[in-house]
Formats: sequence, C-alpha cells, structure tokens
Amino acid sequence: MMDSKGILIVVSGFSGAGKGTLMKELLKNHPGQYTLSISATTRHPRDGEEDGREYFFITTEEFEKMIAQDQLIEYARYVNNYYGTPRAYVEQKLEEGKDVILEIEIQGAMKVKKAFPETVLLFVTPPTAGELKHRLTGRGTETEEVIDSRLRRAVEEADGMDQYDYLIINDDLERCAKELHDIIQGEHRKSFRNTEFMEKIKQDLQRLKGE
Amino acid sequence: MMDSKGILIVVSGFSGAGKGTLMKELLKNHPGQYTLSISATTRHPRDGEEDGREYFFITTEEFEKMIAQDQLIEYARYVNNYYGTPRAYVEQKLEEGKDVILEIEIQGAMKVKKAFPETVLLFVTPPTAGELKHRLTGRGTETEEVIDSRLRRAVEEADGMDQYDYLIINDDLERCAKELHDIIQGEHRKSFRNTEFMEKIKQDLQRLKGE
Repeated sequence: MMDSKGILIVVSGFSGAGKGTLMKELLKNHPGQYTLSISATTRHPRDGEEDGREYFFITTEEFEKMIAQDQLIEYARYVNNYYGTPRAYVEQKLEEGKDVILEIEIQGAMKVKKAFPETVLLFVTPPTAGELKHRLTGRGTETEEVIDSRLRRAVEEADGMDQYDYLIINDDLERCAKELHDIIQGEHRKSFRNTEFMEKIKQDLQRLKGE
Repeated sequence: MMDSKGILIVVSGFSGAGKGTLMKELLKNHPGQYTLSISATTRHPRDGEEDGREYFFITTEEFEKMIAQDQLIEYARYVNNYYGTPRAYVEQKLEEGKDVILEIEIQGAMKVKKAFPETVLLFVTPPTAGELKHRLTGRGTETEEVIDSRLRRAVEEADGMDQYDYLIINDDLERCAKELHDIIQGEHRKSFRNTEFMEKIKQDLQRLKGE
C-alpha cells in the first residue's frame, strides 16, 4: 500500500565520474525496477548506435513539432543539434510504477525539477578533485589542451552541485550502486509521496473509532 | 570526506506501532552509530527504571531551571510532570558524529524541527488501521473504554503524519530496521549536509585548472 507510482530521478555529474557504468550496474542489480529515459536527438547515429536504444533519432522538423506541442520535458541545442526528453515515454513508465532515470546536464535538470517538483536530483562525483583530474587525464594520451578544456568544464559543472538533492561519491562501483538504490528506495518512503496511504489510514481509524 | 557530523532524527508514531522494539533493533544492528537521546523528567522512577537509562530523573526546581537557561530542546508537561530533551547531550553526540534519535511526540517533534531545521522526522505506522486496532486491543484483556480511548488518541496522532518527512511502515521488524537505517544513510548524502565537501572539490578544481 505504499506509493505505486514511480519516481523521476535526474542523474548528473562530472564528465568522467562514471555515471554510465553506475547506471548499468543499478539496472543490472534491480531488473524491472528502473527505466532509463531515452532522449530524442536530431544528430545522426554513430556507428553501432541504434534508434530507440541510445537515442530516438528524429529530424529537426519532427523535433521542432515536439517542442511546439509540448511533448518534451526539457530540451537543449548543442552544436546545431537538438537533444531532449520525450514526455510521453517518461510519464507512461512512471504510471507503470517504474523509477525513471534521466541522465542529463544541469540546465536540463533544473527544467525537469521545475516541471516536476517531486523529481529527485542526484549528482555523481569522484571522491576528490585529484581523482577527477586523474580520470580526465585518461591514459596519458590526451593533449594538455584537451585536459585543460575538460577541467574548465568540470569547474562549471561543480558550480551546479549545490542545486542537487544528493551527492553520490563514486569511489567503489558496487557500494555506490547500492547507495543510489537505497537513496531512491528511501525517497519512496517520503510522506508527500504517500498521501493515499495516509488518507486511507485516517479514514479507517475514524471508522473504527465509531464502531 | 562526507559529512562527519551526526544527524538529529525524531521518531514518532502511533502508540502500539512498535517504535521501541524498532529502535532496539536499529541500535543492535549498528553499534556505535546511533545514540538514543535520554529525556529528563520530573516524574518518579518506576520499578526497574534507572536514572540516566530510561530518563534523567530530576526535581521540578531543576527542570524549571533548565527551561529558564534554555537547556532543553523541547519540553512538555503531562499530568503534572515535565518531560524534556536536554540540549547538551544531544549536541555533544552530534558533534561526535553520532546520529541522535529522539523518540518523542508530535508537539515536541515540531519544536525540534523549528530549532534544528535539518532534523529528519520519521513516523512509524502499522501497515493498516485494522492492524493498529489489533495491536491496541492487545490480548483481548482490555476494556472497551481503554480501547476506545486508544483509538481516539490514534486518530489525533494520525492528524500529524503529514508533518513528517518519512513514513516507516512497520510490518516486519528486520526489514523495517534496515529501511530506517537506509533512510538515515541516504540523508547523510544530502547536498546541504555536505557543503564542506563541495567547497573543497570546487577550490581544488580551480587550483588544478590553474596549474
């Protein structure tokens, strides 16, 4: 009798924080419980990408029609391509009781929180800045320029951290996936997500008192 | 490098919801992590009660002095006796990094939340009103009057449920103790409880960018 509706979860974090691997681990450990939202984009599929798996690949005309009809929870334009989160898929999965995860950046995260105030915002970070630099540096094969540009981006990403509900410190994949799961399960126990349960127990108590 | 300060936790719930047993289970499973706050009271100790274990038993004069000196986080008067939560003990344990649990009623819970806005409020409830009545009825040895008065009290308690952050549905002791622990652990991951971590990573990133 707890809430049967799913929770909308936004996962953001530093590039190189290991979000993708973490999501895969979470979904693997709890089959059927979580759904990753699939974004729509106007960019062309890369080798190995499949329509409906990595993205829904659509035309600019289709995308702009979705914008006009309010069919996207959030969208943005990067380098002449649109990226966005289709509303219908997310709402359907939430109704089915799945927790839906959006892996998006901070601007999108803020738009989603505004449209769906009950969204849980999670920020994934390595344990230290040094560790982050280590991950951004890769195997020592990147040029200094590339590393610099990644660090500048990390500084920008760090600015948004405070806007998130939870910090996930990704030091150990398994521990971290468990923590993520526990946090989401805890969110299901929030009172405001269980108003039906509370109403029912109040009504039943009134009735029992009168018997 | 996550927050090292403890969290203040208020546990309330229906009489007969099994709060006491649940707290014992939680403390048993995680020795050293949680501290139960001990209330001060002016009522006399009952058989088997020990000063500093069930309560700090003090005089009315001592209690009123504590009130005057703001040494109580919250207090109330029931049936001519004072009950209250001594501030010093709670603050000391929080500083030591322990999560401190106050088992108090809704009026006290609201006062604590006002004084310490970062407090987590938990409400323990049986899964259904019928189950609650079953527990209140006991072994069938209670008079109808006693059961009626308990049900009236339950109706009052239910009114406050919405004010709590989380609902803990106590259907299975072990599962429920684990849930409680997971919720509190999740709370440690809240961004606003980790401002030092965020400041440090921001500063370190700025420094690394400049290198």
